[in-house]
Amino acid sequence: MKMLQEKILKEGKVIGDSILKVDGFLNHQIDPILVQEIGKEFKRRFGDEKITKVLTIEASGIAMAIFVALEFGVPLVFAKKYKPLTMENSYHTVVHSFTKKRDFDVVVSKDFIKENDVVLIIDDFLAQGGAMAGLIDIVGQAKAKVSGIGIVIEKGFQDGGKKLRGDGYKVESLAIIKGFENGKVIF
Amino acid sequence: MKMLQEKILKEGKVIGDSILKVDGFLNHQIDPILVQEIGKEFKRRFGDEKITKVLTIEASGIAMAIFVALEFGVPLVFAKKYKPLTMENSYHTVVHSFTKKRDFDVVVSKDFIKENDVVLIIDDFLAQGGAMAGLIDIVGQAKAKVSGIGIVIEKGFQDGGKKLRGDGYKVESLAIIKGFENGKVIF
Repeated sequence: MKMLQEKILKEGKVIGDSILKVDGFLNHQIDPILVQEIGKEFKRRFGDEKITKVLTIEASGIAMAIFVALEFGVPLVFAKKYKPLTMENSYHTVVHSFTKKRDFDVVVSKDFIKENDVVLIIDDFLAQGGAMAGLIDIVGQAKAKVSGIGIVIEKGFQDGGKKLRGDGYKVESLAIIKGFENGKVIF
Repeated sequence: MKMLQEKILKEGKVIGDSILKVDGFLNHQIDPILVQEIGKEFKRRFGDEKITKVLTIEASGIAMAIFVALEFGVPLVFAKKYKPLTMENSYHTVVHSFTKKRDFDVVVSKDFIKENDVVLIIDDFLAQGGAMAGLIDIVGQAKAKVSGIGIVIEKGFQDGGKKLRGDGYKVESLAIIKGFENGKVIF
């Protein structure tokens, strides 16, 4: 997606040899026009699927996933990183964050993903695939179907995308980063 | 806002005498059409103000605030409940959650709220006003201006709204709950 790649080149900040900061337009400050276009782009790429739910994980996936949900005309469900006091029946999984070097709990209420659901999973980043494995596990617990996986920025030099495609999932990434050279992003 | 009130009456769940669960359409599963309309409604109510930034707090404020930002054509900044490893300079405040009976840290990067900013703060709920006080504190630290406060659901029987209006803020709530009677919401 050209608009996204240009934004990454212009405003993204490379730190060391594996971190790309996009907090100026994607995951702390968010450009609403960009996430709206991201929603439209995922509709183009997954438009043939009969999606019934969009699923993401709090917090930084929400702003783009809500536009995907709007395009498909279906609800967005976001997985929570803690269990609210008022949530009674939930699917639960543990996600390992390689960036933060710790495990965290992830829950989704059983009310919102059901056996007949066809789920499109959206997230802002895919690197090792820890969060994505957790979301797929939750859809599996619900006996629902993962119809596709939409990623905004994939770190192509890490294993997550390769594993998911190897497992047969349709993965669409709007920008795939090959690596970094002299502090510049290479697509 | 009629569409929101009808949704609350039809799908909201009252628990005890002070909790309203709206996790079926607002803060776990989200109806994208509803949050899009919420964005338009806040534009109608604050359209005369020269807003430069929309500010909310993760996670459940993001889905509605991004549509407000889209309507105004300005960036959304969401306050984070932990400090990312890559965030260097940040405003910091402590918010007391009356619901969860604990304090938590809230941060916003200094890069994204500046002295000349005119900020519209958006949140899904206003009860005692703990989170809102924290967001106002952060805007104050940046020496920016709070132009208005947009709330989706205000618990009118709790103190937050009264305090904020008493302090001179323009507070617009799309649904104000007077109380609960026999498990039903009274507006």
